[in-house]
Amino acid sequence: MQDCIFCKILGGEIPSTQVYQDDYVVAIMDIRPVHLGHVLLIPRDHVEQTLDMDAPTLMHMTAAMQFVARGVVSATRADGWNLGANSGAAAGQAVFHAHWHIIPRYTGDGLKHWADEAVTHDQLTEMGGKIRAELTKEL
Amino acid sequence: MQDCIFCKILGGEIPSTQVYQDDYVVAIMDIRPVHLGHVLLIPRDHVEQTLDMDAPTLMHMTAAMQFVARGVVSATRADGWNLGANSGAAAGQAVFHAHWHIIPRYTGDGLKHWADEAVTHDQLTEMGGKIRAELTKEL
Repeated sequence: MQDCIFCKILGGEIPSTQVYQDDYVVAIMDIRPVHLGHVLLIPRDHVEQTLDMDAPTLMHMTAAMQFVARGVVSATRADGWNLGANSGAAAGQAVFHAHWHIIPRYTGDGLKHWADEAVTHDQLTEMGGKIRAELTKEL
Repeated sequence: MQDCIFCKILGGEIPSTQVYQDDYVVAIMDIRPVHLGHVLLIPRDHVEQTLDMDAPTLMHMTAAMQFVARGVVSATRADGWNLGANSGAAAGQAVFHAHWHIIPRYTGDGLKHWADEAVTHDQLTEMGGKIRAELTKEL
């Protein structure tokens, strides 16, 4: 897609440090890593976010994610790792070509997860019912 | 697995609000949600983290993740959503039975992502080479 920075990277117009590629996905080093070793996994086809990926792309993303994460953990000697995908500007997505983050983590690195919000059991039950109602079709 | 809270939930010993289930995975409402509508996707087989999932489990997790996330976004009318998986205590994992977070997000909800750390181009290139060296086998 014209003017998409990830399409330009995948097309070789913009340089990147690639660590993995197959027919469906490419993995590159994030140039603004949370920690060195932070990799972005990007589908070749331009789709905006994870919900827009077709089944073959999603399956290849997933298999490559596990494969690449194993390499990231080994190469960085990390104590753990995070998988993350931000879908939509409200969720922190900055480039609107889908991508998954693989982030090495270290004991005591000081990065904090979001706090939980206070909800009642009734609210959980009610929202659970609403979500189930959306999931009426079979996979 | 004995003493695993998620195994007890999946076995019905501990109650939960379930929103999806198939032969491989179960999705339940997180009782300490970042936002109401936060769902946990859990493989039925006890494995510690995403790197330990076998291929069929991983594929079912992924398909269910996309399916359930669509329902979460619809039911909550969220502006975006995050996929997250924390692997290892260093990465924020609290229950050592693998699970993926599906979190609805709202414009201006104030949740902040981790800042990036300063790295040089040489560091990126060097670490990229180390990761590639780990990825010597085929998928």
